[in-house]
Amino acid sequence: MAGEFELIARFFTRPVSRAALGVGDDCALVRVDAGMQLAVSCDMLVEGRHFLSTVAPERLGHKALAVNLSDLAACGAEPLACTLALALPRADEHFIAAFARGLFALADAHGIELVGGDTAAGPLNICITVFGQVPAGGALLRDGARPGDDLWVSGTLGDARLALEVFRGSVALPGEQFETVRRAMELPQPRVALGLALRGVASSAIDLSDGLVGDLGHVLRRSGVGAVLQADALPRSAVLAAQPQALQRLCMLAGGDDYELLFTAAPAQREAVLAAGQRAGLALTRCGGIVAGQALRIVDAAGDEVPVSWSGFDHFA
Amino acid sequence: MAGEFELIARFFTRPVSRAALGVGDDCALVRVDAGMQLAVSCDMLVEGRHFLSTVAPERLGHKALAVNLSDLAACGAEPLACTLALALPRADEHFIAAFARGLFALADAHGIELVGGDTAAGPLNICITVFGQVPAGGALLRDGARPGDDLWVSGTLGDARLALEVFRGSVALPGEQFETVRRAMELPQPRVALGLALRGVASSAIDLSDGLVGDLGHVLRRSGVGAVLQADALPRSAVLAAQPQALQRLCMLAGGDDYELLFTAAPAQREAVLAAGQRAGLALTRCGGIVAGQALRIVDAAGDEVPVSWSGFDHFA
Repeated sequence: MAGEFELIARFFTRPVSRAALGVGDDCALVRVDAGMQLAVSCDMLVEGRHFLSTVAPERLGHKALAVNLSDLAACGAEPLACTLALALPRADEHFIAAFARGLFALADAHGIELVGGDTAAGPLNICITVFGQVPAGGALLRDGARPGDDLWVSGTLGDARLALEVFRGSVALPGEQFETVRRAMELPQPRVALGLALRGVASSAIDLSDGLVGDLGHVLRRSGVGAVLQADALPRSAVLAAQPQALQRLCMLAGGDDYELLFTAAPAQREAVLAAGQRAGLALTRCGGIVAGQALRIVDAAGDEVPVSWSGFDHFA
Repeated sequence: MAGEFELIARFFTRPVSRAALGVGDDCALVRVDAGMQLAVSCDMLVEGRHFLSTVAPERLGHKALAVNLSDLAACGAEPLACTLALALPRADEHFIAAFARGLFALADAHGIELVGGDTAAGPLNICITVFGQVPAGGALLRDGARPGDDLWVSGTLGDARLALEVFRGSVALPGEQFETVRRAMELPQPRVALGLALRGVASSAIDLSDGLVGDLGHVLRRSGVGAVLQADALPRSAVLAAQPQALQRLCMLAGGDDYELLFTAAPAQREAVLAAGQRAGLALTRCGGIVAGQALRIVDAAGDEVPVSWSGFDHFA
């Protein structure tokens, strides 16, 4: 069976140009430009926890890389390369070919190369590590939010969670609407261009993987601040906007799997923020503000408190 | 259960000093020195394929990092940092604490930091990515072997395979001898210092993970050369030397899991090679030579051909 796996590994072996050395030696060699720091992120995806068995392999290849690129985006890093370690119950060429297609399409779109990795026989497990570079001292971090900063979010929120609720059978959607939200869940677009455009503009940033409330909580704790979040200002798709308000809020506040950027910036930066959104081709929405203290208050358009009863999407639920 | 896993993840969160930013943000930030290239390697370990369920968690933590550091050693790279992604069936604190102890002991011994990672609920799977740096153009690669070069190997070979045969029940060893070879299997020492000392001395190098014949084959194919290997010159422990000759050869030639360095160097470099071995505190053995052509011939002390009927340790056997 080793032979089969070696064959399969060839689906992932392509010549590299940007990297100094790709797959096939003990290590890959990657150039990091002078004055830049290496940014590294690593995610492991397990079936039933991070993706459903119903996902098409091509979309799984896309998503496995997308969630990693999203971490680079949140740091304002320029993607350079990635490695892939893949455990598969059996050497399924059809699966691998489609998975590789999805992964490479996204890699090509971001100009990065797969420089190394590993394959093993075992329960399905996908581990990708991405490498990017960021000017020394210039990374967007979680700890820079200050009282008075605006709170911003890119794109729209909650569609991925809405799709999950359809898969769970708790919500029904017409076919076309389901396809729209399913794409949001299975083909998230990492906001790399936005992250780059926000360098020197945003005071903190995080990507929304576990749900807005949970991820905002990380920023607040690391920054030692509180926030007021305007629930009715949160951006949502037309599909989600047609759902009952409680479901909308669940999906937007605790949905998870959005892979939009949540960031803070001083009010003096509002024009610069909107210009960054334009450069990245993304709608940006101001949805609250940072305050002194440690508390997160969520309020509706009337100023009334919205109860926080979600702690973020739970991968181990 | 997420809470439990978050708790567990804290076993792996330690302050960093060398890295610019460690665990806890979207990305880790790592400094790569001017003029250096980043060397990256990634290995995924699956129970039953790469380790036995009988291994102590502390030794597993050691080995999971060791096999990755061994790849950096084979490139002559200086280790900088690593990431760990870990899938576990359940949040077992005892296992994690011991695993972390083994991993950090080896990381500390090599002055590297764990800068990021991921944990997930799922079948046991360990994926480590290591980062090192090497002067641009100075990495030891597999493609540099030239006809006339000597073939060298560090340490002794075959003990890990001998231990595996004991676990499989095909060989019996007295308790003390078993402990010795079991340590070779479970606590391999990556030859990082040797790899660094061989920069500019060796013409090619690889670490022995899959068995001497298979790994030498990678060097020969990449370099476009053949080799003559002196089977009786191969270094072996006293424990292995007491076994029947056929078993000795199986263990040394096709054993796998040795994590010694196999390298080539011009005969003019013999003194430099031995000096490198002394600096690294390792015995080095000249065990053959590179020839024109593509064939690997294995001969005994009398010059007679030893049949090559092994294709290297098969992780998927």
